[in-house]
Amino acid sequence: MSLRHAILALLTVEPMTGYDLFKHFESSVGYVWHAPDSQLYPMLRRMEDEGLVDGEEVSWGQRGKKRRYTATAAGIAEFRQWMNTPLEYTRERDPIHLKAAYFEWAEPESARAQMLAHRDHFAERLAQWQLKVHEIDTGTSPMLTKRLASIPAEEHAATVAFKRFTYEGMIAHAQQEIEWAERGLALIDQLAH
Amino acid sequence: MSLRHAILALLTVEPMTGYDLFKHFESSVGYVWHAPDSQLYPMLRRMEDEGLVDGEEVSWGQRGKKRRYTATAAGIAEFRQWMNTPLEYTRERDPIHLKAAYFEWAEPESARAQMLAHRDHFAERLAQWQLKVHEIDTGTSPMLTKRLASIPAEEHAATVAFKRFTYEGMIAHAQQEIEWAERGLALIDQLAH
Repeated sequence: MSLRHAILALLTVEPMTGYDLFKHFESSVGYVWHAPDSQLYPMLRRMEDEGLVDGEEVSWGQRGKKRRYTATAAGIAEFRQWMNTPLEYTRERDPIHLKAAYFEWAEPESARAQMLAHRDHFAERLAQWQLKVHEIDTGTSPMLTKRLASIPAEEHAATVAFKRFTYEGMIAHAQQEIEWAERGLALIDQLAH
Repeated sequence: MSLRHAILALLTVEPMTGYDLFKHFESSVGYVWHAPDSQLYPMLRRMEDEGLVDGEEVSWGQRGKKRRYTATAAGIAEFRQWMNTPLEYTRERDPIHLKAAYFEWAEPESARAQMLAHRDHFAERLAQWQLKVHEIDTGTSPMLTKRLASIPAEEHAATVAFKRFTYEGMIAHAQQEIEWAERGLALIDQLAH
């Protein structure tokens, strides 16, 4: 259950409203950890109850108000503890590989469409992740720029390097899935003849 | 929700008890789709209620009884329909990549241990999947042998090819995750000096 940790990761940079967080979950951190707003707002309320974040009302527009959240010391400690705790690995649950193992049951045109959709899904992700690496390399990521401004200069290299390393891994995975889908398309064509 | 489809895939070969299915979910199909027995038995009962499988009491050992399940025509139709339905892709929720993006918050020794665990997790999976490909190539997979015996000879090539293609994709993914973990270990060492 990493949503709370993804939220805390973002709040280590600066206080944010639920809407600010939602925007980040639609881009930056959302390319690694997706959270729909139906989960985000209840989680923020629960984290406030648990003392991991502090909420305060701030003005929004002419007469509106929004709740802005700050990570508390307890929240920072929770994030750091999670960062130092080994993950539990779950075993595979991979629907497209489950399907591919039984593609002889599908219509060739349907198997073909599913491999195309797999390729397109990862091609889209690949483009997003390549853009993130480009932003890192050119210093044009607004969130990373803010983060670097908030930490000592001697921590900059590691902060940048781990972000780039993460996206590199996701890029390599996307490229591997695209290659696999293309081999699947070739195999389906070959078996259909 | 693909557990029911993974169950139906196995039952297209022959009738099986819950225990037979459990064993397959610990090996063969379990290397693609894992299901703990806490989910398997309730799902079988639900699928029987829905008419997707037929259950019958069979003798087990000296005095015991077990319930053995057969895919019904409705179950086969459900499986075939699922095979022809495009998947919904979910966006990323990848805890180790979420963590890696913030590894500067972890103790170097902890980050190192987590990358080693990631490498070991996929090294173990890699060995399993390579063994499956070896079984396919040498005709020594008991389940695949049974399946081939139950279908016309002209369908053998596709049945074997799609199985191999599936495991090849999982092997390529495992190799990519192992390489990524090794680059992470090198990066952690480099930043710690």
